[in-house]
Amino acid sequence: MTSVTVIGLGLMGRALAGAFVNAGLRTTVWNRSAGKEVEGARRAESVAAAVGASSLVVVCVVNNDAVLGVLEQAGSLEGRVLVNLTNGTPAQAREVAARVAELGGRYVDGGIMAVPQVIAGPGALVLYSGSREAFEEHSATLEVLAEARFMGEDAGAAALYDLALLSGMYGMFGGIYHAFAMVRASGGDVREFAPMLTAWLAAMMAGTPEAAEEVVSGEYTTEVSALAMNQLAMPNFFEASKELGLRGDVLAPIRDMIDRAVEAGHGADSLTRLVDMIKE
Amino acid sequence: MTSVTVIGLGLMGRALAGAFVNAGLRTTVWNRSAGKEVEGARRAESVAAAVGASSLVVVCVVNNDAVLGVLEQAGSLEGRVLVNLTNGTPAQAREVAARVAELGGRYVDGGIMAVPQVIAGPGALVLYSGSREAFEEHSATLEVLAEARFMGEDAGAAALYDLALLSGMYGMFGGIYHAFAMVRASGGDVREFAPMLTAWLAAMMAGTPEAAEEVVSGEYTTEVSALAMNQLAMPNFFEASKELGLRGDVLAPIRDMIDRAVEAGHGADSLTRLVDMIKE
Repeated sequence: MTSVTVIGLGLMGRALAGAFVNAGLRTTVWNRSAGKEVEGARRAESVAAAVGASSLVVVCVVNNDAVLGVLEQAGSLEGRVLVNLTNGTPAQAREVAARVAELGGRYVDGGIMAVPQVIAGPGALVLYSGSREAFEEHSATLEVLAEARFMGEDAGAAALYDLALLSGMYGMFGGIYHAFAMVRASGGDVREFAPMLTAWLAAMMAGTPEAAEEVVSGEYTTEVSALAMNQLAMPNFFEASKELGLRGDVLAPIRDMIDRAVEAGHGADSLTRLVDMIKE
Repeated sequence: MTSVTVIGLGLMGRALAGAFVNAGLRTTVWNRSAGKEVEGARRAESVAAAVGASSLVVVCVVNNDAVLGVLEQAGSLEGRVLVNLTNGTPAQAREVAARVAELGGRYVDGGIMAVPQVIAGPGALVLYSGSREAFEEHSATLEVLAEARFMGEDAGAAALYDLALLSGMYGMFGGIYHAFAMVRASGGDVREFAPMLTAWLAAMMAGTPEAAEEVVSGEYTTEVSALAMNQLAMPNFFEASKELGLRGDVLAPIRDMIDRAVEAGHGADSLTRLVDMIKE
């Protein structure tokens, strides 16, 4: 019977451990504070005991400082694979990877693209990076949690792609929330508007592969929707939002990037040129 | 043979007039500056002559100040329907509507959800509002340009929904551009990343109807992804972006809204609560 250890029993840690238990794996758990249990899992008395119980050790705690704290109590990681599913940055992941290597273990970093409620359900995705060999050894077990996708041997890659995908999501949500706020403030029906908005966004999203080509080729000239045209229309958003008693915050960075791009002589380029404006 | 007049021969005006010509309509055009032609359309010598040529007059100029300038030269609009497809705000649309009524005409405002290149093609959409009767009288002709959707009798409604949809788009594009910038700066393949990003955004977009329900009901409590959790993860974006030499501008308003929402006691609410943070 395959065994696995889960360190950290927050909302996500409990979901991970519960999924392993449900899949019939011998599951050991440890949490810094007492009182958190996962039915069917054995609770270890110490980090070292938890690490000793399984060759696969999954860590999901509040941040990577907490991961480093856990590692201080872990003892040797000889023969162990540590899979770190804690939220963090690529640089933090590389730091934890180095510490795990010093302790004699192999390291896989992971970025969970799912909320706890959908772990082990359809659509859940976890990105992994670091030791490809260790990932492949344990991928069947990790597939219990979610689709497991390996992003590269740089330990920081999973965190990078995790943050990039979430950036896209937060940007999209910001746009959706501003649109909702406009419709609501004008007395419109947000519920009726929602499917219209998603249909529109899906149509606009269809240009993403072409935008990627522009970014890769550095060739941004367009016949379709030049930055100078977009700049011309920008004041309407702020004027209309103000008339409705709304802040223009969500759109301000886009307007400012368009202004900087046009000022830099890119007025005839497509909106995709804004990718370059994100550089420091 | 049905006739139509198009005033304004910018990129979009030429596309509109060209579509009418291709549909076999007797098309009259007028443009402030000379030298712009549309094959198959008759060029009027004055605004008044252009307005006199057709009972349906479509105006698409640089902004609504220019529309008001055109109206000063139009003479009587008795028996005329003016369809204003110029970019603008709801308040501007209502101002133009009032001026058209004073001149004896009926008014329909429109928001074009398409670039000139896709006019008369599949997927093109124009939102209309104002006189429902005038819209219905001419909807067959307007369908030549794009799917024609009537949004309400408030002349400002088309501009409002146009700007709301575009707000959603700019937000989404901002997120996509930030994601692209992160992947490129870390040496990743933006072309390979694009389909992964769109699949992720499409999955995240599936929650939009539920978000609309929350906005309408004012009931934002969640078990899934509370604002306080999102707040905790926010610094990672800025730290990771900085490490890559990238500005965090696109995500800063989202972070600030999350901070304000948590400070206002909404930490246990879902992200959708941010719609309320857009109010002045």
